[in-house]
Amino acid sequence: MPKISQRGKEMPSSPIRKLAPLANEAKARGLKVYHLNIGQPDLPTPQKALDALKNVDRNILEYSPSQGFLSLREKLQAYYRRFRIELSVNDIIVTSGGSEAVLFAFLACLNPGDEIIVPEPAYANYMAFAVSAGAVIKTVTSTIDTGFALPPVEKFEELITERTKAILICNPNNPTGYLYTRAEMNQIRDLVMKYDLYLFSDEVYREFIYTGSPYISALNLEGIENNVVLVDSVSKRYSECGIRIGALVTRNADVRRAVMKFCQARLSPPLLGQIVAEESIEGTEDYAAEVYEEYVERRKCLVDGLNRIEGVYSPIPMGAFYTVASLPVDDADKFCEWCLSDFSYEGETIMMAPASGFYSTPGMGRNEVRIAYVLKKEDLQRALFILEKALEAYNTR
Amino acid sequence: MPKISQRGKEMPSSPIRKLAPLANEAKARGLKVYHLNIGQPDLPTPQKALDALKNVDRNILEYSPSQGFLSLREKLQAYYRRFRIELSVNDIIVTSGGSEAVLFAFLACLNPGDEIIVPEPAYANYMAFAVSAGAVIKTVTSTIDTGFALPPVEKFEELITERTKAILICNPNNPTGYLYTRAEMNQIRDLVMKYDLYLFSDEVYREFIYTGSPYISALNLEGIENNVVLVDSVSKRYSECGIRIGALVTRNADVRRAVMKFCQARLSPPLLGQIVAEESIEGTEDYAAEVYEEYVERRKCLVDGLNRIEGVYSPIPMGAFYTVASLPVDDADKFCEWCLSDFSYEGETIMMAPASGFYSTPGMGRNEVRIAYVLKKEDLQRALFILEKALEAYNTR
Repeated sequence: MPKISQRGKEMPSSPIRKLAPLANEAKARGLKVYHLNIGQPDLPTPQKALDALKNVDRNILEYSPSQGFLSLREKLQAYYRRFRIELSVNDIIVTSGGSEAVLFAFLACLNPGDEIIVPEPAYANYMAFAVSAGAVIKTVTSTIDTGFALPPVEKFEELITERTKAILICNPNNPTGYLYTRAEMNQIRDLVMKYDLYLFSDEVYREFIYTGSPYISALNLEGIENNVVLVDSVSKRYSECGIRIGALVTRNADVRRAVMKFCQARLSPPLLGQIVAEESIEGTEDYAAEVYEEYVERRKCLVDGLNRIEGVYSPIPMGAFYTVASLPVDDADKFCEWCLSDFSYEGETIMMAPASGFYSTPGMGRNEVRIAYVLKKEDLQRALFILEKALEAYNTR
Repeated sequence: MPKISQRGKEMPSSPIRKLAPLANEAKARGLKVYHLNIGQPDLPTPQKALDALKNVDRNILEYSPSQGFLSLREKLQAYYRRFRIELSVNDIIVTSGGSEAVLFAFLACLNPGDEIIVPEPAYANYMAFAVSAGAVIKTVTSTIDTGFALPPVEKFEELITERTKAILICNPNNPTGYLYTRAEMNQIRDLVMKYDLYLFSDEVYREFIYTGSPYISALNLEGIENNVVLVDSVSKRYSECGIRIGALVTRNADVRRAVMKFCQARLSPPLLGQIVAEESIEGTEDYAAEVYEEYVERRKCLVDGLNRIEGVYSPIPMGAFYTVASLPVDDADKFCEWCLSDFSYEGETIMMAPASGFYSTPGMGRNEVRIAYVLKKEDLQRALFILEKALEAYNTR
């Protein structure tokens, strides 16, 4: 029997996936599980976009262009202009979700052994795409005491070697909700310029910024136009995770040419998803405003609620729909498992993502969890109550 | 400005893509271009599948399971049973087109530097996915004089080294239309067993077999159950190239576990495509029969017509909807370009895929083209007439 590849062995499994069987068993025992662990918005997709599906008037569901429909790229061009990002439609390549944008960025820009510096905690699948491309992720740790602000520039510089080829940021951040300031973005720009690195910037949560602080896109930074590769997705902003439509955006023509070869090999991005995405971008301002207001309320409810529980601390997340909170437990992995396997309160329990899965540095984030606020406010309140009960029970076992 | 990766440079561009600008210019000059070059069926998608889109009754277009919907995998399980292939639903992993199945098979099974032996001419994008995974494709040449039959086993064995990890076949074959016989499949099985190789088998054209010869799936071969990884797609059989739904099928649990990690990293296959694909598999027998009859007619029309043109030779393709024909020209690349740039007959011309792009061995297939029969019969007849006129004009310039 032939052996699987080394990267097949090295590919990480998400920590949430380890908990999934426990959650299923809990449900099989009749428990109601509040899912604080997921990144799937519960809010509806815009009706206009759903209607587009009913109105598909095609006899053949044929290939679309490898770069994506021009009409979709034009709408995206106009969308980015709202954020003062001026692009040519050619700078925009439609991908099968933000996931494919990350993979293709790595494949096109990085050689096996090349290193990417990423602030941690970070989205766990960056590691998976790095393994796929043979690249190596090095992390600088941001900490809960500073609200997960950008680590000092010196921490990045300490990691820079001959093989360092890129910095990767997620802004607003998954899992922390942190939004980089203008000063921090300038620090990143200076680093990128000084060492001539790629800057991969995942900005899929830009619609969800709550504090009035400005959103500074990597594409707004001057002097590194050829270094920036933006990763984007319609998944979160329109509750369209399933349609698999994202984008890779770069002003670097060499990168685009290389990325397009990977795009041509996979023929085309999803046709139906493009049709839905195209209808979502314009004429959905009211939808976006409602969704935004909803998240504002939920965030307030969650962060207030967490910080009222004894021993729990959550910084104020400025964006996205997550927060990383510290709990009064030694090992959040074990606590999250225990919540599903051994605990219930009035027939209910909670599922959270242990933060350890978002750190590469061993031992980091041991007492932290990522909590997503993609539940209705009443459910969030109830889930917080159950968390409080769970912590009491866990610490008095 | 940072440099793109080595694989970004090495990624092949399809030969058809070099001709695309010429075709656009020809159209801009007002010419009608018959596309004999493409693999996009012109036949409609089953109405039942199109209707499924109108009936999507969801408020949220959310993530689907990374492995694909169980209901789709159950339908695929029943579908494979029609071909005497018995599988567990767990053996089936839904992918974003056959393309993703090839990529994930390579990533999960092959280390950088590992070698895959492929009979050429071969689908050009295998090379692209091999470059993506750092694997190396070695080709054994099949020739037009034998109708592109499997090359002798010794030719495979001559290429086998320490690094040989897999054989890749496409059956029925794109670009040649060849269907491997039981005897040939047994030869492949014996090779795979003797050297403990993976057998990647791309069988997306199984519905299109015209000669009464049996279709022997790699999954029907006994004794190599843990070696076979099947690549499949609904694209061609239901005219659904755009929905990006394929499958990776294997009885090897280690491979499945590794592939699933790549699947989890990209979160899920397209939701809407799965809904359409699911409706296409059952209750579409009449559709399949009609489509089949249409291709039977077209194939006869094309192959007869080609062989009637002086100096042109096409073997009888047993399956798929392509043939590789030899033309009375020195350099089919130049001839195909010339047809678009310098030739027209009564305001019309033809676009064909030079076969050189399907060979890795330099100089092979110089006088060959791949012709797809995805045009209506009358258009095929007209295109053949124009090909004849073009050859006359080209050879008397």
